[in-house]
This record gives sequence, C-alpha cells and structure tokens, in this order.
Amino acid sequence: MLGVCYYPEHWPEDIWAEDARRMAETGIGVVRIAEFGWARMELAPGVFDWSWLDRAIETLAAAGLKLVLGTPTAAPPRWLVDLHPDILPVDRNGLPRLFGSRRHYTPASPAFIEATRRIVTAMMERYGEHHAIIGWQVDNEFGCDDTIFSWGNLDRAHFQDWLKARYTTIDALNAAWGNDFWSMTVGDFAEVELPTRQVCDTNPSSQIDFMRCRSDLFVDYFRLQAEIIRAHAPGRFVTHNFMGFSHTFDHFEMGRQMDVASWDSYPLGRIESLPLTDAERNRFARTGHPDVSALQHDLYRAVGNGRFWIMEQQPGPVNWATWNAVPERGMVRLWTWEALAHGAEAVVYFRWRQYRKAQEQMHAGLLRPDHILSQGGAEASRVAKEIAYLGPLPATTPAPVALVFDYQAAWVTQFQPQGKDFDYRILKLRWYEAFRRLGIDVDVVEPGTSLSGYSLVLVPTLPIVSEAALQAFQETNALILFGPRTGSKDQNFAIPESLPPGPTLQGIMPLKVTEVESMRPGLSAAVSGTVSGTVTRWRDFLETDLEVLAHFDDGATALTAAGRFHYLAGWPETDLLGSVARYLLAKAGLSVVDLPEHVRMRRRGSLTFAFNYGPESYTLPVAAEQLLIGTPELKPHDVACWRA
Amino acid sequence: MLGVCYYPEHWPEDIWAEDARRMAETGIGVVRIAEFGWARMELAPGVFDWSWLDRAIETLAAAGLKLVLGTPTAAPPRWLVDLHPDILPVDRNGLPRLFGSRRHYTPASPAFIEATRRIVTAMMERYGEHHAIIGWQVDNEFGCDDTIFSWGNLDRAHFQDWLKARYTTIDALNAAWGNDFWSMTVGDFAEVELPTRQVCDTNPSSQIDFMRCRSDLFVDYFRLQAEIIRAHAPGRFVTHNFMGFSHTFDHFEMGRQMDVASWDSYPLGRIESLPLTDAERNRFARTGHPDVSALQHDLYRAVGNGRFWIMEQQPGPVNWATWNAVPERGMVRLWTWEALAHGAEAVVYFRWRQYRKAQEQMHAGLLRPDHILSQGGAEASRVAKEIAYLGPLPATTPAPVALVFDYQAAWVTQFQPQGKDFDYRILKLRWYEAFRRLGIDVDVVEPGTSLSGYSLVLVPTLPIVSEAALQAFQETNALILFGPRTGSKDQNFAIPESLPPGPTLQGIMPLKVTEVESMRPGLSAAVSGTVSGTVTRWRDFLETDLEVLAHFDDGATALTAAGRFHYLAGWPETDLLGSVARYLLAKAGLSVVDLPEHVRMRRRGSLTFAFNYGPESYTLPVAAEQLLIGTPELKPHDVACWRA
Amino acid sequence: MLGVCYYPEHWPEDIWAEDARRMAETGIGVVRIAEFGWARMELAPGVFDWSWLDRAIETLAAAGLKLVLGTPTAAPPRWLVDLHPDILPVDRNGLPRLFGSRRHYTPASPAFIEATRRIVTAMMERYGEHHAIIGWQVDNEFGCDDTIFSWGNLDRAHFQDWLKARYTTIDALNAAWGNDFWSMTVGDFAEVELPTRQVCDTNPSSQIDFMRCRSDLFVDYFRLQAEIIRAHAPGRFVTHNFMGFSHTFDHFEMGRQMDVASWDSYPLGRIESLPLTDAERNRFARTGHPDVSALQHDLYRAVGNGRFWIMEQQPGPVNWATWNAVPERGMVRLWTWEALAHGAEAVVYFRWRQYRKAQEQMHAGLLRPDHILSQGGAEASRVAKEIAYLGPLPATTPAPVALVFDYQAAWVTQFQPQGKDFDYRILKLRWYEAFRRLGIDVDVVEPGTSLSGYSLVLVPTLPIVSEAALQAFQETNALILFGPRTGSKDQNFAIPESLPPGPTLQGIMPLKVTEVESMRPGLSAAVSGTVSGTVTRWRDFLETDLEVLAHFDDGATALTAAGRFHYLAGWPETDLLGSVARYLLAKAGLSVVDLPEHVRMRRRGSLTFAFNYGPESYTLPVAAEQLLIGTPELKPHDVACWRA
Repeated sequence: MLGVCYYPEHWPEDIWAEDARRMAETGIGVVRIAEFGWARMELAPGVFDWSWLDRAIETLAAAGLKLVLGTPTAAPPRWLVDLHPDILPVDRNGLPRLFGSRRHYTPASPAFIEATRRIVTAMMERYGEHHAIIGWQVDNEFGCDDTIFSWGNLDRAHFQDWLKARYTTIDALNAAWGNDFWSMTVGDFAEVELPTRQVCDTNPSSQIDFMRCRSDLFVDYFRLQAEIIRAHAPGRFVTHNFMGFSHTFDHFEMGRQMDVASWDSYPLGRIESLPLTDAERNRFARTGHPDVSALQHDLYRAVGNGRFWIMEQQPGPVNWATWNAVPERGMVRLWTWEALAHGAEAVVYFRWRQYRKAQEQMHAGLLRPDHILSQGGAEASRVAKEIAYLGPLPATTPAPVALVFDYQAAWVTQFQPQGKDFDYRILKLRWYEAFRRLGIDVDVVEPGTSLSGYSLVLVPTLPIVSEAALQAFQETNALILFGPRTGSKDQNFAIPESLPPGPTLQGIMPLKVTEVESMRPGLSAAVSGTVSGTVTRWRDFLETDLEVLAHFDDGATALTAAGRFHYLAGWPETDLLGSVARYLLAKAGLSVVDLPEHVRMRRRGSLTFAFNYGPESYTLPVAAEQLLIGTPELKPHDVACWRA
Repeated sequence: MLGVCYYPEHWPEDIWAEDARRMAETGIGVVRIAEFGWARMELAPGVFDWSWLDRAIETLAAAGLKLVLGTPTAAPPRWLVDLHPDILPVDRNGLPRLFGSRRHYTPASPAFIEATRRIVTAMMERYGEHHAIIGWQVDNEFGCDDTIFSWGNLDRAHFQDWLKARYTTIDALNAAWGNDFWSMTVGDFAEVELPTRQVCDTNPSSQIDFMRCRSDLFVDYFRLQAEIIRAHAPGRFVTHNFMGFSHTFDHFEMGRQMDVASWDSYPLGRIESLPLTDAERNRFARTGHPDVSALQHDLYRAVGNGRFWIMEQQPGPVNWATWNAVPERGMVRLWTWEALAHGAEAVVYFRWRQYRKAQEQMHAGLLRPDHILSQGGAEASRVAKEIAYLGPLPATTPAPVALVFDYQAAWVTQFQPQGKDFDYRILKLRWYEAFRRLGIDVDVVEPGTSLSGYSLVLVPTLPIVSEAALQAFQETNALILFGPRTGSKDQNFAIPESLPPGPTLQGIMPLKVTEVESMRPGLSAAVSGTVSGTVTRWRDFLETDLEVLAHFDDGATALTAAGRFHYLAGWPETDLLGSVARYLLAKAGLSVVDLPEHVRMRRRGSLTFAFNYGPESYTLPVAAEQLLIGTPELKPHDVACWRA
Repeated sequence: MLGVCYYPEHWPEDIWAEDARRMAETGIGVVRIAEFGWARMELAPGVFDWSWLDRAIETLAAAGLKLVLGTPTAAPPRWLVDLHPDILPVDRNGLPRLFGSRRHYTPASPAFIEATRRIVTAMMERYGEHHAIIGWQVDNEFGCDDTIFSWGNLDRAHFQDWLKARYTTIDALNAAWGNDFWSMTVGDFAEVELPTRQVCDTNPSSQIDFMRCRSDLFVDYFRLQAEIIRAHAPGRFVTHNFMGFSHTFDHFEMGRQMDVASWDSYPLGRIESLPLTDAERNRFARTGHPDVSALQHDLYRAVGNGRFWIMEQQPGPVNWATWNAVPERGMVRLWTWEALAHGAEAVVYFRWRQYRKAQEQMHAGLLRPDHILSQGGAEASRVAKEIAYLGPLPATTPAPVALVFDYQAAWVTQFQPQGKDFDYRILKLRWYEAFRRLGIDVDVVEPGTSLSGYSLVLVPTLPIVSEAALQAFQETNALILFGPRTGSKDQNFAIPESLPPGPTLQGIMPLKVTEVESMRPGLSAAVSGTVSGTVTRWRDFLETDLEVLAHFDDGATALTAAGRFHYLAGWPETDLLGSVARYLLAKAGLSVVDLPEHVRMRRRGSLTFAFNYGPESYTLPVAAEQLLIGTPELKPHDVACWRA
C-alpha cells in the first residue's frame, strides 16, 4: 500500500477535496495527518477547535482514503511554553532550548505530561472510533535533534529517582559505578550529578545509566499515549515513526509497546551523515548506499515484531543534508519497491505537496509548489500501478542469516570508543553489506530473540551480554560469529574480572582478551589462514587454547572457534569480511551469488527482487518470461521481480 | 590624495609636531584621528577633556595637514559600561560579551543611544567648524567581530517592535512566516523569540527579518550620528569605514546616508578568510588575490554613490590573519594605485607608526616602532611623488559591464545554503574575475539602480527580486545574465507559487525551476553548446520552451535566453564562466584582451592602469613613450599607467 | 629504583598482603598511594577515618616496601562541594564545572584553602614521621584538563589583587598594558575583567599577566602544602608529579619549592596530542617518538634541581588518547631504562592492577584485571633484575649542550602565535631532536641558570629576555644560538622600542628585526651559505652589519653571528636544523655520531645507553664484551648499555 503525509493546515480548505481526489488517482491509499497540528487543535488550555480537522478527515475519507493520525505532541504550542517554561529541554550548559521549531519538551516535566494527557485524550475522544482511521502514530521522530537528552533540574531529579529505583541504596550505586575511584562517592541519590560538565571524563557507568534512564523515560512516554489511544480506538494499530541510525533510545523496547513499527527513509541524506568513504559518497550521492535503507528495513521489521511501515519516504531532493542531490530518475520507485521487498506493509511518502514556507520549504513532495506532479509523484504513481498488477504481496519469510543488533552496544562504544573511529553504525553496516554482496538476505534481531531456524548468526559486537542473549546463542544450532569487544563489559559498564568476553561467553568459548588496541588510520594488520584480509581500527589480543582458524602477521590469533562459536579478534575491512562471509556461508551450507557493488537482491516469500543502484546494467540470472517486473538486463536504477 | 591614521593618544606630545612634519614630507595630505579616543575625551558622564585633542588637531593642521575625525563610539569607556551594563552585546547563549576590546555595545540600548548623543554632540560643538577638518567618520567598522548581532532582552524587545511595525498584526506575521508549520503560531508580538537556540532549524523567514531588523538598527544608528554631525559641520563630508566582504548589514542602505563611502583594504588577510583554493592562497599569499580588493573598490564606489576612500590601507604585515605574510616589495604601492585606478579619492594608510603595545602591536605602520620609515612608508612616499607627477586624476567613467550585488542575496544563501559551499562571496568574486581576466572593467550596482548605458549586466544570483530591480532590468537595453537561484524567494523568504524565478521575472523570461540540486565536491556536470565548461555545487532544473543555448550532458537546459535575458542554470566553474563571458561580450559587441592569472587592467577616465600581481613579467600593448608610469615590460609587482 | 602506584581503596583488604608480596617479588621497591583518597579519609568536615589507610600502610611496609604518600587534594569529596559550591572551577562562560571527576577546585577559594589545611595537617600529624614513608607528593597533576584556569568571581578578585601587588597604581597598569589603545583605560583595579569573552582579541598583556597570576596561585598552593608537610615530616622529600608538555604554569618556579621533581610519562598518548607529522605518528604509534619523553626527562631533571622521578610510567595501552595502541613488546622496558639513563632516581609505574571500573578502566597496569602479570609487568620485572645486576647507577654529569626552555616563551607564542602553527612544543622538540640525531646529550635549562661549562647553548626562542638570562649568556664561554622571535617582547608584552631582539641582546649582538612573516604551509624559504636548508612557518627580517653566515634566496640574512652569539632568522626545518647543528658542533669542537631516525644514545656518568625505537636493527660501535646490557646488534625495541 502507498500513502502520503498531508498537512491540511498548510492549505486553503477549498483545495482539500481536489487534493484528496488526486491522491486517490495517483494510487495513494492512506494519508497521515495531524502530527504537528497542536496549535490549531487546542487554542488555550482545554479549549479545543476540532472543526478544521473534522472537515479534513471527512474530505479525505470521502475520497476513499484511509487515515493514520498523529498525536501532535512533537510541537507544543507557544501558550503551553509560556504557562510552563519548564517543559523546555535544557542543553548541556543548563540553558533552555527555545520555542520556534519542534520537539521543545522534556517528558520529565509533569506539566508536559499533564498537557499530553489532555490533548491525546481529547483527540481520542473525538476520533478514536472514526471508521476511516486505521492507525495512530504517537508523537513524531523521538530523538530528532538530540532531544532524548535534557539537562535541567527536572531531568536531574528524574535521573536520581530512576537510580534509586535501580540501585535501592546509595552504597549499591557507589559500588556499581566504582565511585571509590577519584573520591567520587556520593552520600545520597540527591547528590548525583547529571553526566555533563564534569572537569574531565565522566564515569561511563553514569553515562550508560543516564542513557538507560532517558530511554526508559521516552518508552514510558510512548506507553502513556499508547494506553490512552488503545482505550479509545479499538482495532486501530499504534505506531511511532522512528529515525534510522538513531541510537539514543532503545527502539526494541519501545517497539514491544506497539503493533507495527514505522520509520522515515531518506536515503540521500545518509550519504553525508554516515561516515562512508568519499568514493562511496560520490558514487551513491544520487541513489543512496545500497545497504543503508535495507538494513533499517530489516531492523524495523524486527522492532515491529514482524510488521513495519515506511512512514516518511523521500520523494525527491530534501533540505537538511550537507548537500542535497536530486535522486536519479527511477530511484523513488526503486526505494519504494525495496521497502516492499523487505516486507513493508505500506510506504508513505513525505509529503503530498511541497510547502513554500518555513523550515522545510526546500523539501520536495509528490506535488510541486505549483500543484503539478513532481518526478517523485510520477514514480509513486507507477509503483501504484505495478502493485496493482502484482496483487497482494506474499508474507516475508525468515532469512538464513541473522545479525544481532543491540542499542547498548551503540552506547558502550559511543561512551568509550577507545579509538575515535570505532563507530557502531559503520561496523554493523559493513557486516551486513558483506553478506548482501553475496546475495544473502539478513534478518536483524535483538539480543535474546530466539535464533532457532537460522544457519548463521552475526554479532558484529555485543559488549554487554545478557543472560537472555546467552541462552539464545546456546539454543540455536546456527554457526555464530562474534566480533571484537563482545562481552567486554558487565551490566554496570565494568570489565569482567575474568576478562572479556566475560564469564557467560567463556562458558561456551574458552578464551580471554588480554589486551586491546585501537589503531590510527595509518595502521593495519594482515590476517591469513582459512580466511584472509585486513584488520584496521581495532584488535583484540587473545589468550586461548582453541583452534586458530586465522592469525595475524605477528602470529596472534585472528579467528578462532569453539565448535560453532567463532570469534573474530579485530575490526574487519571489506576484504576480510568478504573472506569470513564466504568461509562461514560455505560451512553453513548456504550458496552465494557474487553481486557487484551496486546490485542487491531480496526475497519476499516466493518473490525475488533485484535492485540496481549503479550506472551500469546487470544481467540477471532469469529469463524474460519469468519476470513479473523488469527485464533480464537490469538497467541503471531499475527494479526487477520474479517468482523464484 | 594619500592619508594616514594617527593616534596622538599613543604617543608623547613632544613628538607630535615632528610626526606631522614627517607626514607632510612623506606626501601625506590627510590624517584620520580620534575614532578610539572616547576614554580620553569624556572622563565621566558629561565631563569632557578636549585639551589634548585640541593640541593634536592644531599640531597636525599647523603642518598643513587636513583632518578626518572619527566619532569614538566604537570604544565605549569603562565607566559607561559600569553605569549601564545593558549596553554590552549579548552572545547567542544570552551571556554578555565583556569590556576589554572594542565594539562592546548594542544600539538597542537606550542608555547607549543617550551616551552617543552626548559625546557626538559635544565633539561636534567643539570641532564642527574647524577649518582643517574636511570630513567625519561615524564610529568604526560596524559589524566587526560579529557585532551587528546581539541576543539580549533589549534586542528581543527591539525586534518585536520592528516586527510590529513591519506586519502590524500578529496574524500577518504568522501568515508571512508560515507559522502554521510545526505549530509555531504566536499570539502576540511579545511572544516572538530571537532566532537562536531553537531545538532545530529556525524559520528562515524569522532569520531574514532579524537580519533586516539589525541592519535597520545600525543604519538608524549611523543616521543619528550623521544628523548631529551635519547640524554642526556644514560642508564636511560624512562617511563610515566599511569592512569588505562583510555582509551582516545593508551597506547600500547606509551608503545612502553618507557623502562618501570608505572601506578598509587588507589584501593579504583575505587570502585565508575567503575560501580560495590552496593554489591561489600559495600563489597570492604575499600579494593578495588580483580581484578581491578590486571588487570591493567597485562595490564601495557604488555604495558611496560614486565617491569612495580607502580609510585603512594595509601598509605591511598585519596581525589578525591565520598567517601574516610580508607583502612583496612593491605591493603597497600597487594596492594604492589600484585603489586610485578604481576611483578612490584618497588612500589612507593604517597607520602612521606601529604601536608597541596592546592588541594590534604586530600590525605594521608607515613608521616602524623605532621611528624609521618602513617598507610600506617608503612605497607610500613613492606613490605620493607619482601622484604629484601625474597631476589631478580624471573622473571615473562607467564601465561597460555591471554586476548586480545584493545584501539580501548574501543573507538568503547564508540562512539557506542548501549545499554547504554555496558561498555568495565566492560566487560574485568568480563572476567578476571572469570578466576581469578578459580585460573588462566592471561596475558593481545595487538591484534597482538604473542599468541604462551598460552593454551587459551580470546577476550572479538574486533570490529576492524587487519591483525596482525588475524595472531596472526592463528599462535597460543591456544583455542580462541571471545566475542560479535568481527569483527563488519572495520578500518573506517563501518559494514563489509559480516556482522560481518567480512571477516578476517569468513575465520577461518564461521558465520554471522545477528542482534544484546542491552537489558535493566530488560531483560535477558538463555543459556544452554555444558555451561549454563545468558546473559544480549547484544545478537548477529548468522547464521552458525557450531556446537552449547550452545543455548539460543529460540533456537538460544549462543556458537559455528570452531575447536579451539569459539564464544560467548552475554554479559555473572558471572554464564555463570564461566561455559564457566570451559569448556574451561578443554578443554585446565588446572586445576582450586575454590577461594571465596575475595581470589586471583598469581604466579611470582617459587613463589606463595595469597591475602585475605575479612573479612573471608581462608585455604591455603600449609603447614606452606612451607610458606615464612604468615600462612596457610590466615587472613583477609593478604598476603601469598610460593615456589610452 | 622501580615503584608502582597502588589504590588500596579499590581492592578488598584481604588481597592487600598478597599484592604487597607480589610487588616485592616483581622487584618493586616503592609504592605511591593515597592521592585520590580524600573521601575515604575525611567523612565529614573534620571527621577522619584513618583505619583503612593505617592498615594499608602497615601491610605494604611489612612487605619491605617504601612509600610515597600523595595529599588527596586533587579529588575534593562531594560533601565539601555541597558545603562550599564556590570551590568549583568556573569555565570561560562563567558556568561551574561540576563534581564527578577530579580537579574540581580553584585555589582562589578561601574555603578550599581552609579545607586543604585541615586535611593535609591531619594527614601529616598521622603519618609525617612514619618510618616507611620516604616522600610526599602534593596534590596530583596540576593543570590537567585545563584546571589552572578558572573564570569565576573569586578568580577575578584574586587577579585584581595580584595586579595591585604587581603594579601598585592603576595608572601603572594602564601604561604597562597600553590601555590607551581602544579606550581600554580602567579607573580602578576592581574594573579589570578577566581576559575572556571580550568582543574580539583580548589585550595580550592582560593574558600573560593572568597566566602569571594563575601560575603564582598554584605555586603558592604547592608551597602551602609543602610547608605543612615539611613541618611534620623531617627528612622526607616533597614533590609534585607534573604533566609533560603542559605549559600552563611555571614548573621551574614550583620546582624551586621541592626536593625532587617527578613527572608522568605516557609516550604513546603523545603521538596524537603533539602535532607530529602523519609519517611520524604511524612509524612511532607503538613506541612513542624517540625524543618526546627524553626531552621531558631532561626538563624535569632541571625542574628538580638535578633530581627527578617518573611518578607514573605507562605500563601498556592507555585509555585517554585519540587512539590507544599496544606498546611494542619491549617498550615498557625501554622507556624505563631511558628514564634511568637520563638520570631518573625512580620509575614508578601507573598502576599495580587495572581497575575494572570507572573512568580509567581501559588503562593497563602491571597486573591484568584477572590478577595475572601483564606484558608491562613482565618487562618491569626484567628491568628490576637488570638494575640489580648493574648495581648503583652513577650520577648524571652535565651534557655538552644546553637548551634554554622558558614557560613565558610558551605563553607569548600561544597568546600571539601570529602564524597558527608557531607551536613552541614542536619548536623545542625539533631543536632537541636535531642534536640527539647527532648523538649529543642535551641538558634543559631555565633562562638565568648559569651556562658555564657548556660548549653550546640553544635558545629556540626566548621572546622575553630577563636580566638574569642576559647575564648567564654573557658569563658563559659557550657558543649560543638564538632562534627567531628572541627578545621580541619586554616584560609587559610590548615590542621593544629599539625593535627585537631588544636593548639587552642588542648590547651583545647589534641587529634589528624590522619585519616578521608567518608563512602558510605552502610557503617556504631556502637558506644557503655556511649552513643550508629550509625555513618554514616564520621569518625574521634582519637589519645588521654583522657577518652573514647564511642567507635566504632573496638575499636577506638567515644566520648571522656576533662573536659567539648566533642568530637564526627563521623556523628551521629538519634539513636546516641538521646543517646548523653540525656547523655549531664543529665550531664548538664536539664530535658527532650520525644516528638513524629511530636510534638514540644517552650517557649517565660512565655509562652509555642506546635505545632502538624502530623495527630495524642497528649496529652499535661497541664490542660484545664491553656490553653490560644488550648485544652489538641492537635489536628492534631493545636497549644496550656499556661503560664508555
């Protein structure tokens, strides 16, 4: 299903009906509205004006469109800030972040919680059972612009309460954090500072606890809204639209509170914000990197417990990246099909018509400001026809390979990179890419999720290994590959006394990491043996009696295994990753297909899709008559689909 | 005429007379004094001591020197700050910027306005009709060190008042800014925040309005002083010394309030502060870039309505750039002649003698600290003799080509670069350079200035096109070349509903820009047709039925024309700029001379000047006997002058 | 002697005795403890608990270990901050730097001074005469994390008092600072601002005075503690452990208050924090640069008036650098021997056992967290045996060459770099390196120290030349080489009226620096004559009738001499430095040995040591039978020692 985001509040009412008619004509089935409309809904505390929204909903519904409504809490109105200045988030220096954009609140503010209850309850009472509304989006893009954090007095008090709930006694906290170091002992929870503006490094234990605390605060804030919605809107789904590659709260934890996950896919913006190579950035500036959105699709399918939407799909050039390219012709269609191939239930474009004013005026829509269908609009319309031609898409089936993704891994490596380029976003992307280059579908899973059914499980790194994670590793028959730094911390961010990978993993894989090295960009280490290639950025030094599958030039162990448990003692460059991937896939009995840098495949049930991100054609191993979409010669920026 | 800046307050009185004598001997005719002397003039509120200044003025006048006096408001004394701490400017975080350097005030402070009236009135009453004083400089270098901006409570209140005057009703403001986006609607002018410290992007409409507001504030502040001066000093000129490449207020608007413009020319410092290429920086580190000061001369001639001075001319190495080279021998002379060739009425060196103390102790003067003439002093003396030899210089006549420069263009592209290297300073420099490399003199004009008499008009970009600008484009017979992003915004920073270049320009040039792309440094687009070369950084995608004069590799229109109106759909690199320049100059019937990278020519009335910025000689197309200054073989860092 | 830092407060008491036994077994003779234990010692104001420390001391002493105790003032406890929030240092924006790490105090706080007296007095009363305690360390790493500075109200008041003591009258201050510039005159000491948050550049005279003021404040703070210690601990030495390459206070001045200096040697961390070349960083990432620690050894031998310790020696990978490599096998031994070769009385490793928690959990120790001896521990143990084999080391004898190091030189060039890469740390390192590459031992000396006995004295730069320094230059017979910018400032940071190198030096060396140039990285100047090579970054332009020993390409003087006083008019690159070094060493009658980039030698009395920092072997000019340690083929990362 295709959808679009629409802002009736931006447009004169007399064009709403025509907009709705054209949406339906373009093949749009669902429209998201209202998520920034608080100021129009509640004019003063408890004074509501639903008239415009009533008319907007009716107009869209009358055109046969289904609706997803957003609660408007991402944009508190000016009068609320005036009444309760303490809802404003506070920056690291203790200065408030001001009204005039969005996300200007901290959920640690009781006044904001009260205002949230009021607006969400009123909205649900009005629209909860509306026939055309099929789902609800809570708030919008939690964490955008560093808004999980706030460093004010309310936030400190909330952190202190959270710590008290976690540790019960201040002695337990002092012990867990190792506060005997540097005389950091505190006598009472009320004495704990937020981890900011210390003279030098802040205790990493306090940093990860503050991150957990803020993550819990936003999960609770989601739950608060979700409960009000569910109480009034039986049968409608509840979701949130996440931002990809955003790691400041635990998306899995929040995902457990929702019916379907959704995320915002802007492939071109990621070209600059992820630390890709310059060659990649130039090559994929107008297409996006072939694995970046794909990895997020697979992540949010897991976050949504198997169900996900694209709630905002890039429809053309945007405004917020360092540079903002025009997508190659065909890419809006390609991105849409790729999301569907990875199991998306709907792809909702952001947005119907480019608004000529305010912050996002340079962000394209399906319509240009002059009301004419944009290039992206034309491509969306084509996809709609192709979807209609294909009929209902089959259900997604599990991939043969799982990649374990962990938010705490992102936090540990952020608070303690130890080498400044140890970037978890890139680490997981490179591992994923290596298998996708071999034609392999990869599921993303949370640590502790059952791994049964997989042939191979990838753990790029997992510094904190929970009991649940261990159990899942033990209960599968899959080969498992652990990357560097796995098991390097306990729950309190301390090094295990038995050294990494820690007592739980050492039970199944007897080895010790005795030293670690982060390597500046000029350094590398060659690996050879059953696999070969290059390690950069990070090395673990192992002490073990296990079999050495590959070793470094200096003789140290690079890859070892205890039965089906493998440990890779460094950050693998592309060459080594490819070699390791081939080795393990062969061991797991999985066959591979060598894909060039710019081509990817993905199966959805009985369908196989192929995508060409590059300027060169690629010959598919399929006859023309088998193809449901496309041609055997897969053209640049084109899509193909066939039944396997 | 040559001049020099002098600070009697730095030197013992017993050397003043000797200094004056040596100035006259060196060929100096005018001396600027007093612009940082407030603490010596007003010892406490209303308590003045003019004795030292009386003596300084008399001493200089007695040597036959003319004087320009500066009002001293750029350096408020300590006691004023103590009495009225709210005169201090406030940084973006709301913290005051402290006493201890200069420009520590905001004109939004009523106390500072009152103090200004008092000191300027007192100074004018004392010296307004002094026979030796020929002109007055108001304050000094408005905007230096980001001092147009201040983010305090007084500044916010002033902004709110300014907005009320502009929009009358808050509904009009909400509509103009598109505040329905993200529920940013405000209920009262008192609720408008300054555009700083918002959670994410600030509304660009509020940013440009704040810029306009601050620009108006400083223009008003200039006018306040100018009116006091004019009331007391009949026949004397009023000026301000602007800083080149400083775009934080509208110099044209302020220029309309003055009799003559002046600016501060420091060619070497610009080598690092402008984003030139590394090759250019190395090549011109000790000479300055050949077009950088020239472009500013042409700008301030326009700002001063045909009249301009150099109020501070670099006389040797300075102290404030990232690196501070020693000018090549001859460059102080060359820079002086170049200013004169562009029409400067006077070139005033900064400063007479290098002061051994305080912030600018490493900034050279015409005298070294040991009282001996510096290299720059010797070169100034040589220029003085050459001026005497040539006699009165002819009046400047209009150039055949005009370049439209617009402060709002700088603001729009700064607040919304869309691609991080869309730098208006460089864009206009490169367009200017392309024509100068072909031996063409270029006038700089404000949008709306009459363009009659020009053969060719260049508009590197002009996002906001006023009615006056349109009228000037229509009323000339010149060929006009518009660059990318022209007409891309309306007065309120919204995209025109008919798409760029907007309804006014579309009336004379029927085309639409349907998409725009900013390109990362690795990307470019080749152009071919009647012109050829490369586009980088920016592309407009055109929809038009007009003739295609050149196209991109992908077939899209790169250069088109509707009669004499031409539109170039991208940021041209040097190759394309040169090609376009030749094409249009030929079309306009202007002949060109190919100059190497390091040689430039400039006409002043019947005189032609040539300047060699490089280490290689250049053979001029002139016989030795024609030359008033110089030789046919134009040596490195040398100047030539002949009557055409 | 070898030692180790130990934190009994981190470990259960039941392992202390075993730890002590193993220390002794490893060859450790001395243990530093207690410097971060305040929170365990004083539980509330005046409420002390010494029981744990009593037991720790007794346990260590019982194993035959000697002790150095640290006063714990680097880590004020939480209750003290709660009682007196004004002890917290204040950042440049006026915001307090918070509790939660270390060094969170300003000595300008009377409450902190009172608390210091209380804890140090109590500690001394308890332990002053303990038989096992041989010395006392005052506080820890003054200046770490920019903690010399604090910008609060107490700090401003202290600065104003300091200025009053220095200048007596405000007129004297105004004159010294040149406050007539920009109307900066102040009417009272209470009107002086701290040099921060001014609108533009701050007066450099105020900056250097604030630096002197803070330096004095910390020297006084050291003295306060030293006096209490000396009153209670007869015969014990007093020291402080300095941080190398830290220039924010005058280490010589503080050194005069102590019996022995000590410093913290972390060779690998310096690879990224010093602006070395990328080639050097890659080559020496796992060894450290061969001259970096050596130069600090020679510095702190001078600071300690001939006596120094390494109070913290890197024992393996650390946690705080941008990247943290594992030392090459052998380097911990090499670093230890190198310190001893330069005269260290003891090398104390940081730390006994890697603590699994808190900020420094990734910092190695002699024991791993699993209680097993680390690689560094094994190497320490080897050194202990070698020391025992060699017997008592001879006394250090003076080197033939002295390098004059000056903290004010660091401050002047920091506050007024004039070219952004004029980095005093690198300048002195390169001069030192040039002579060490020729096999020459170099002493570091403070300006004003007697230079008699030296053959050659190097002054890389000395902007402020004191009377004492001049006297020392005059009273030696050594050749002296002055580098650029020498004598360029008077005591108040003003340029000498007679131009640099100022009247004192001009008395012995008649020349004037008439202009200076800082050169961007793309520029350089070739030198030829008796010496040849390249100048980058900086040139002085000389006016002199002295003999020209070498000149620049443009004919200007590059090297000149007045008798034994030589002046080098630029920043010499390695080629020119080597050429100058050979020229002067020959002139001084000293013989040289050409060492490759990675090999260094050093004499201690009758012993000569050689160190190999590289991956290639080096053949020593010594027969096997002469060697006390090592082999004639000096292997990578190996050490040799022989009696000359």
